[in-house]
Amino acid sequence: MTTDNKSIARREFLTVVGKVAGSAAMLRTMAAMGIGLSAAACGSSSAAPGAPVVPPPPPPRLQSPRPGDWPANVGVGKTVVILGAGIAGMTAAIEMKKLGYTCTVLEATSVGGGRNRTIRGGDTVSETDSSQLCTFDADPDLYFNPGPARISHHHEFLLGYCRQFGIALETFVNENHAALMHSATSFGGQPQIRRRVLTDTRGNIARLLAKAVNQNALDQDLSPTDKSNILAALQEFGDLDSAFNYTGSERGGFPGQEDTGSRQRGERVTPLQLQQLIGDIFFQQRQDFTQGLEQQPTMLQPVGGMDRISRAFEAQVAADTLYESVVSEIRKIANGVRVVYSDRFGSVFNLDADYCICTIPATVLRSIANDFSAAHQSAVSSFAYSSAGKIAFQSRRFWEQNHNIYGGISWTTQDITQIWYPNNGFGRNDGVLVGAYMFGGNAGNQFAAQSPQQRINSSVNQGGNLHAEYSAEVGRGISVAWPKVPFQLGAWGVSDPGILLSPDANIYFAGEHLSLLQGWQEGAILSAYHAIDGIVARDIA
Amino acid sequence: MTTDNKSIARREFLTVVGKVAGSAAMLRTMAAMGIGLSAAACGSSSAAPGAPVVPPPPPPRLQSPRPGDWPANVGVGKTVVILGAGIAGMTAAIEMKKLGYTCTVLEATSVGGGRNRTIRGGDTVSETDSSQLCTFDADPDLYFNPGPARISHHHEFLLGYCRQFGIALETFVNENHAALMHSATSFGGQPQIRRRVLTDTRGNIARLLAKAVNQNALDQDLSPTDKSNILAALQEFGDLDSAFNYTGSERGGFPGQEDTGSRQRGERVTPLQLQQLIGDIFFQQRQDFTQGLEQQPTMLQPVGGMDRISRAFEAQVAADTLYESVVSEIRKIANGVRVVYSDRFGSVFNLDADYCICTIPATVLRSIANDFSAAHQSAVSSFAYSSAGKIAFQSRRFWEQNHNIYGGISWTTQDITQIWYPNNGFGRNDGVLVGAYMFGGNAGNQFAAQSPQQRINSSVNQGGNLHAEYSAEVGRGISVAWPKVPFQLGAWGVSDPGILLSPDANIYFAGEHLSLLQGWQEGAILSAYHAIDGIVARDIA
Repeated sequence: MTTDNKSIARREFLTVVGKVAGSAAMLRTMAAMGIGLSAAACGSSSAAPGAPVVPPPPPPRLQSPRPGDWPANVGVGKTVVILGAGIAGMTAAIEMKKLGYTCTVLEATSVGGGRNRTIRGGDTVSETDSSQLCTFDADPDLYFNPGPARISHHHEFLLGYCRQFGIALETFVNENHAALMHSATSFGGQPQIRRRVLTDTRGNIARLLAKAVNQNALDQDLSPTDKSNILAALQEFGDLDSAFNYTGSERGGFPGQEDTGSRQRGERVTPLQLQQLIGDIFFQQRQDFTQGLEQQPTMLQPVGGMDRISRAFEAQVAADTLYESVVSEIRKIANGVRVVYSDRFGSVFNLDADYCICTIPATVLRSIANDFSAAHQSAVSSFAYSSAGKIAFQSRRFWEQNHNIYGGISWTTQDITQIWYPNNGFGRNDGVLVGAYMFGGNAGNQFAAQSPQQRINSSVNQGGNLHAEYSAEVGRGISVAWPKVPFQLGAWGVSDPGILLSPDANIYFAGEHLSLLQGWQEGAILSAYHAIDGIVARDIA
Repeated sequence: MTTDNKSIARREFLTVVGKVAGSAAMLRTMAAMGIGLSAAACGSSSAAPGAPVVPPPPPPRLQSPRPGDWPANVGVGKTVVILGAGIAGMTAAIEMKKLGYTCTVLEATSVGGGRNRTIRGGDTVSETDSSQLCTFDADPDLYFNPGPARISHHHEFLLGYCRQFGIALETFVNENHAALMHSATSFGGQPQIRRRVLTDTRGNIARLLAKAVNQNALDQDLSPTDKSNILAALQEFGDLDSAFNYTGSERGGFPGQEDTGSRQRGERVTPLQLQQLIGDIFFQQRQDFTQGLEQQPTMLQPVGGMDRISRAFEAQVAADTLYESVVSEIRKIANGVRVVYSDRFGSVFNLDADYCICTIPATVLRSIANDFSAAHQSAVSSFAYSSAGKIAFQSRRFWEQNHNIYGGISWTTQDITQIWYPNNGFGRNDGVLVGAYMFGGNAGNQFAAQSPQQRINSSVNQGGNLHAEYSAEVGRGISVAWPKVPFQLGAWGVSDPGILLSPDANIYFAGEHLSLLQGWQEGAILSAYHAIDGIVARDIA
């Protein structure tokens, strides 16, 4: 569950935020915010020998706290109740146990991982008003990651856990020049192969800039040497001819290359017209999503499904976790926290601890009775979430066999927004196609409002505008609309974390929504480190 | 074994061609040439009912011939001797057997695959004047593909065989924004992370073009609507601010991101200076190599090593192959061909066949006695080859653990040219690093002239300018310099195939060098189809 194309995503978030929270300004704040940035600079403050015997001041908190920052055994004799066994909650338990804290994780469902899930044949998807059975064939390559589905190469804490826990990784293909770009209002609604869009856009940009340079229009900015150098660079950048014209490029492929079987290798396609390449916000903006810092290659995925991570984390903390334990109250008590929860039989329990780390999504948390400050309650109540959803189908790999598409993403202006081709099992007969991934705004809400069968119908219908094979070949559709998933009620947080980065008495907050990397597992991990850091600071004070 | 960055590669090829063959003009010819393009258009010429009983004219040959074009059983009773069990020769045997031809493959070495090889611990690399033992640990992820190492997603015939033969494929990471760009003469010789180079180049190009547009310098080319649209597109393309300035971008990453452990996520690096980004032919040209049609994502590799393909092809034709059979003469005889060869004991044999398909590299073929026409002999004698070579090391995966580099390629102006990070076994402790891949010109020849130990020394030394870990961590170096590999004597052909696309009597020529895709396995396959097509045309005439 990730934010593609930062700029468009930002716009869509603003829509959501504006609607739900009444203000877009918070996002500007967030862009400048780093978790822990408000704390003091790095350094040591251990008392010098012979200093007076007074408690030393708390050491300055390191920016971007992380394991290794905290003293051994700092948590011995202290108890923590962690609410939610998602990636944030399990990270908190894993790391705090190492520091000596006694941790209890309360998890509402029967399994850890939170939104990190993988759906396989035989699995059930339960939403608030529906239930679906996944009927994919039993096969290690036939799975669907409805939540997070890719890992940035620089999400180094998550990758570190994968290394530590022996989770095999493989490439996630985010950029595929054989994938399609489909705008209902450009090119007569005909999908365009990505290689042509990218190539001809670069060619035109390079041609126009070269022309301006050659007309001396940029002499204020460019010295004669610069001009000569940039012309050479533009020639390569856009594949211009020796006169700096762009008349098409072999990079755009050969005629008929959208389908296998073309006999025209070595020929060139006619370039797409600049007017169409720039005349539509879709083509203006959907080309560049893999330039975003989180979306750049290399992207990774666990071999066999994203929940390999959930299972590995869970192996570390299952003994500390109470499953099917639904929190009903979060109370402040003297020097601690009381959590009231009920078990699967409806029996109600109180659990007291020195600290609480609450990773419950704000969408769910706002309905739980609590003693939070007015400011914390307000932040929880108004926290906006992406309404993302996905649908997946099992199908013959027509995209590989008929179109040479191996992994990657096609884009469309339709509600389905994206089609993802599987990045595993290349060359096998069947694969799982993600037939829609709408990550916010109206499309996500409408998707959630549809019944599972309506989602299938609309996704097959829309997908057919990109691939003629759709109606005959895709089947066994199964969808997840995060706003309707119990104990999640949203895909990921998009509001400014604000006050929720600060504890309320002994209650700390964590979760992907409280990080610089909202919607990413790495964000969940960083948020856990931030909460741990706050608690440790108190225990060494 | 592939041509990166078409433009630079072209220059390097021109150097080679100019040196060896005396003319660069042939390359211009080649660019416009398609194998079989000179033949007639598609269509059927089967005689109408009641037509006079005369032999029908040969049917027009299809452009880009391929399996399915040829009539069943056309080869029954005909014999073919195929010289060389590389990808071209084995493809010819596989397909001609299906048509009823009796095929005999003569292979000089003890194994099929030709330059498609994978080196693992315990393997020996023999060159004309040296022998090396590979000492990698025995492990399925520790291997080295010294020849072809990646497959374009549109190399559909090769991919079709992989599907047919059950060869598992995974992604080859060609583009990694965490990899390095190192020019000895730019940025004080400090390697730059690719994400910054790409981001800041795009930012500057977009900024300059936006400025020219806003100054009305391109009003001849752009209508008012175009101007408004291209400005919106440029803002996204280069991540410009609202005033169309470029002051850096989060796409360039955060400070210290070259190494793991930075605490500055959320901050921005200062953009690189345009003058440095364009002031060096290296930065002008090495940014864009993954835009080339053969280099665009998705790229693929067989799981476990490229020789999975050799083994699978070989399983189809081993029974038809005489190994360790070294050809000494290729003679024309009445209605056929005589090939003289010697076996491992030095015994000499004549093998007569109706046809010969000769896939022996021109570098080797020119020393074999033959009856070729003067034109064919001249083409064989002057055919230029890339002098590519590679070296590989086993090492701790410091690139992953210390730098978040997962697969992909770093570039340098030094002779080693490229460093390839392994695309398999992510997260494991050790990996095989390709420490040099020079694909032509002086660097390749000098590499070939060095002893294996000298190659190790120079590659470790040069690699150390990109990665400080090199001297302490990389080891077990093993190299292949294709100009010195017996029965290959070169990496891939770079001359115009010219007359060698036409048979000489009953002798047909094939091999990657005789294709539009020189240096690629798909080219070898296409060349085999071309040769088969020529033979079939005669047999149905």
